[in-house]
Amino acid sequence: MTTVFEDAAAAFPTMLASSASDRASWLRAIADTLDAAVDELVALADEETHLGPVRLRGEVGRTTGQLRLFASAVEEGSYLEATIDHADAAAAPPRPDLRRMLRPLGPVAVYAASNFPFAFSVAGGDTASALAVGCPVIVKAHPGHPLLSRRTAQLVVAALANAGAPVGAFALVEGYEAGVALVQHPVITAASFTGSVRGGRALFDLAAARPDPIPFFGELGSINPVVVTKDADANRGAELAAGLAASFTLGAGQFCTKPGLVFVPRGSTLEQRVVEHLPAELPPLLNDAIASGFATGAEHLLALDGVEVLASGAATVAATDVAALSDDMLTEVFGPLTLLVRYDSQEELLDALGRLEGSLTATLHAGDSEPSADLVDVLAQKSGRVLFSGWPTGVAVTWSQHHGGPWPATTSQHTSVGVTAVRRFLRPIAFQDAPDAALPPALREANPLGIPRRVDGVLRV
Amino acid sequence: MTTVFEDAAAAFPTMLASSASDRASWLRAIADTLDAAVDELVALADEETHLGPVRLRGEVGRTTGQLRLFASAVEEGSYLEATIDHADAAAAPPRPDLRRMLRPLGPVAVYAASNFPFAFSVAGGDTASALAVGCPVIVKAHPGHPLLSRRTAQLVVAALANAGAPVGAFALVEGYEAGVALVQHPVITAASFTGSVRGGRALFDLAAARPDPIPFFGELGSINPVVVTKDADANRGAELAAGLAASFTLGAGQFCTKPGLVFVPRGSTLEQRVVEHLPAELPPLLNDAIASGFATGAEHLLALDGVEVLASGAATVAATDVAALSDDMLTEVFGPLTLLVRYDSQEELLDALGRLEGSLTATLHAGDSEPSADLVDVLAQKSGRVLFSGWPTGVAVTWSQHHGGPWPATTSQHTSVGVTAVRRFLRPIAFQDAPDAALPPALREANPLGIPRRVDGVLRV
Repeated sequence: MTTVFEDAAAAFPTMLASSASDRASWLRAIADTLDAAVDELVALADEETHLGPVRLRGEVGRTTGQLRLFASAVEEGSYLEATIDHADAAAAPPRPDLRRMLRPLGPVAVYAASNFPFAFSVAGGDTASALAVGCPVIVKAHPGHPLLSRRTAQLVVAALANAGAPVGAFALVEGYEAGVALVQHPVITAASFTGSVRGGRALFDLAAARPDPIPFFGELGSINPVVVTKDADANRGAELAAGLAASFTLGAGQFCTKPGLVFVPRGSTLEQRVVEHLPAELPPLLNDAIASGFATGAEHLLALDGVEVLASGAATVAATDVAALSDDMLTEVFGPLTLLVRYDSQEELLDALGRLEGSLTATLHAGDSEPSADLVDVLAQKSGRVLFSGWPTGVAVTWSQHHGGPWPATTSQHTSVGVTAVRRFLRPIAFQDAPDAALPPALREANPLGIPRRVDGVLRV
Repeated sequence: MTTVFEDAAAAFPTMLASSASDRASWLRAIADTLDAAVDELVALADEETHLGPVRLRGEVGRTTGQLRLFASAVEEGSYLEATIDHADAAAAPPRPDLRRMLRPLGPVAVYAASNFPFAFSVAGGDTASALAVGCPVIVKAHPGHPLLSRRTAQLVVAALANAGAPVGAFALVEGYEAGVALVQHPVITAASFTGSVRGGRALFDLAAARPDPIPFFGELGSINPVVVTKDADANRGAELAAGLAASFTLGAGQFCTKPGLVFVPRGSTLEQRVVEHLPAELPPLLNDAIASGFATGAEHLLALDGVEVLASGAATVAATDVAALSDDMLTEVFGPLTLLVRYDSQEELLDALGRLEGSLTATLHAGDSEPSADLVDVLAQKSGRVLFSGWPTGVAVTWSQHHGGPWPATTSQHTSVGVTAVRRFLRPIAFQDAPDAALPPALREANPLGIPRRVDGVLRV
C-alpha cells in the first residue's frame, strides 16, 4: 500500500504534462459533482457547522463557481506568463534565445479552515488553485467538520477519477499529527493555510525550518478597520448602522474579513443605532475551540481600561476613545464582536490608523466630496483591499480580487482568493536555445496553445 | 541626525506616489553617472577583486544596461498587473467594482555579492529592481570591495539627488553587525541576497523569525549540472572540451552558474581534452574567505573515495564513476573546479540526476536527433534554466531570463535577474467601489497611463 505522499509524487509528472484543457475538465468535473450533491452536502455541513442551509447553499455555489473560474483561467493561459526573447547576435554580448514560463511546484499541502466548510475547505480555493496549475494536493481536514470533509473528499476523488486525472492528484489527511507531518514532508513543495495567527505561525515556522524551506501561504488574523467620516455619519448614519450590524454578525462574526474596529466621529448616533440593529439570536459558534477563544478574547477586551460595553447579547459591541486605544485592543477577536473607536480630529484618526497591524481589508465610509487622500493612503498601506462605502465581509471571486495583506493578515505577497491565487503554486523556468520540439507547447514558436505571450518585449494577446 | 532606516521610511511615501517616468529617470541617471565614471570604477574594482579590466568594463555595461531595461519596463507598465472587473449587479451574489494592481512593499534590504562587484552589488539588479518599483533600498556592502562599494554608493546618491529622488531612496551600510540588524529592522519589508548557502540560510532564518516575517529572496548555492550525451560527445567532443574549460574557469570559477558537475559517457575523450584546454594561470580568488572555502571544499572532494584528480594546477578537474557518486560530491565548490561523472546508460544518468538538489541552471549537450524528453524533464525539475548546447555562465538580462531554482539555488519562486525580478518587491492591493479620483492612475477608468490591463477578464494591450 502506498502513502498519500508516494501517490502525490507519482501523480506529479502526469499532472505536469497534462494540458490546460485536461485540468479544466478535472475542475469542472469536481464542480458538477459537488453541485449535484448539494442537498446532501448542505445537510451534512449544517449539522457540523450550524451555519444554516441558505448560507451553506450559497457557499457551495461560490465554491463550484470558483472551480469553473479557475478552469477558464488556465485555458486562457496568461497565468503561464509565457515570454520569448529571440536570439540577438548583434547584442553585446550576443543574446541566446530565451523563453520563460511558470511551471507547477509539485505536491502541495492545503490546511482547511472551519469557517467556510466549502469555499476554504476540502474543495476550496486552495485546492482549486493547485489542481488548476498541475500540482497534486494533500488537504489536511479541519476537525470542525470531519464528516463533510470526508464526503467532499470522496466526491472529489471520484470526480477526478472519472475525468481521467491520475491517482494521487488529491488526498485527504486528518488529525493534528498528520498536519504537522504534512508541512515537513520532503515531497511537499508549498503549503497554504487559513486560520488563526497561532496555528498559522506554528506551521509557518515549521515550513521555514525545513532543510529545504518551502513557501508557506498563510492567511492568519485581521481586524479589518472601518473608518466613518463626519460627513458619512451625518448623511448616512442609519444605513451605516444597519450595514455594520449585519456585517460583523454575518456567519456569527466568523469571517476573516469581519469589521472588528470601527472609527466613528465622537457624538455619532451610530453607537446607539448599531445596537438597535443587532440580531436577537445568532447560531452557535463553529466549535469549542472558537467558542472558548471568543469568550477569552471578548472578556479580555471588555476588561481593558477605557472600554465600555454597549451591547453584550448574541453579539457584542464595545466602544472606546481613540486616546485610550491600546495595542491590546488591536488584536482580532474572532466572533460576533466589534469595537467602536471615537475620534475628534482627522489627525487623531490618521495617527491611530498608522499604529494598526496589517489587515485583509480596510473600509472607508466618506461623504460625497472626495475622500481624503491621506486616509486612502494609510488604509492602502495597512491592508490588501480598500473598500469604499461597502462592507468587507463579502469576497467576490474574480480576476481582480485580492485576499491578503501585510502581516499578520497574510505571510506573503500573494492572494488566496481570485484568479491570481494560482501564482502561489508555480515557479518560473527558462529554456535557453532549446529546439522547438523540446519546449513545452506554451513556448513553441508557433504558439500552438494560442495564449497571450510577451515576444521580444511586446505583450501580444 | 536621522538613521538610514528613518530616512528610508520617510522616503517611501514620496516614492510610492512617484510616477513610472520619475523612477525611470532616476534609474537612467544612475546608469549615466556610472557609465561616465567607468574608468575610475573599473580601476577601483580591479584593485579590490582582480577580475581584470576587460571583464569589469563589460560588467559595468551590463549593470547600466540593466538599470535602463528596468526603466523601460516600468514605463511599459504591465509589471503592475492592473486588473479591472466592473460591477455586475446581475451576478449572484452581485459583484462590486474591483480593481487590482501591485504596489511597492516598502524599504528593502539588499545584500551585495563579491563575485559581481557591479552587477550583483551596490547598484546591481536588486537595487535596480527595488528603485524601479518605488522601494527605498538599503544595501549591505560586501566586505570584498569596500572602496568600490563606497564610491559606487556616492555616485548613486548624487545621481538620485540630481534626478529629484527623495533623500533616503538609497543608503549603504557596512559590516557584519549592520547586516544582521538590517534584516531584523521593523522598517525593512523584504530582503534580497546573493552569496553562500551558510550566509544566506542564516539571514533567511532571521527574516523568518521576525515577529512579522518578511520575504527573503536568497540566491545561495548551485552545482549547475551538465549532461553530455554519447552523440554529442562523438560529434562535438573537441568543441565541448574547450567550452567546458572556458566556462568553469571564467572569473576564476567564481560564478553562481559555474558548471560544477558534468556527466560524460564513459570512454569520452573529454576528460583528456578538457585538461588540455585549461588556462595555465588564473587570477587570484576574490578574497581570503573564498580562497579558504575553495581550498577546504576542493580538498574534501578530492579525498573522497572514487574521486580521481585529472588536473590540479590553476584549475582543478576531477572525475568519478556514476556508481561512486555520493551526496558529498553534490555540493557546490565555489571556485575553478569541476567534477566529471562517467556514466554508461541513460538509466544510470537519469537516476543520478534525480538525486541532485536544485540548481540555477542545467545544461544538455545532445546530438542532432531530438533530445530525450526524459532528460529534459529531469533537468527542468532540478533547475530554473535549462540550456541546450551552451554554457551556463552567461546570464543575459532580458524579459525572459530566470535566475533561480529549487532550494538551495534560491529560497523562492522569484528571479534575481531579468525584468520579473521587480516582482519581489511588490504586493497586490485591490480597491472596491472606489471613486475614480481616489484610485491610483494605473486603475482609473480612462487608463491615463496607457498601460496593458485586464478588463473584465480580457487582457488588453
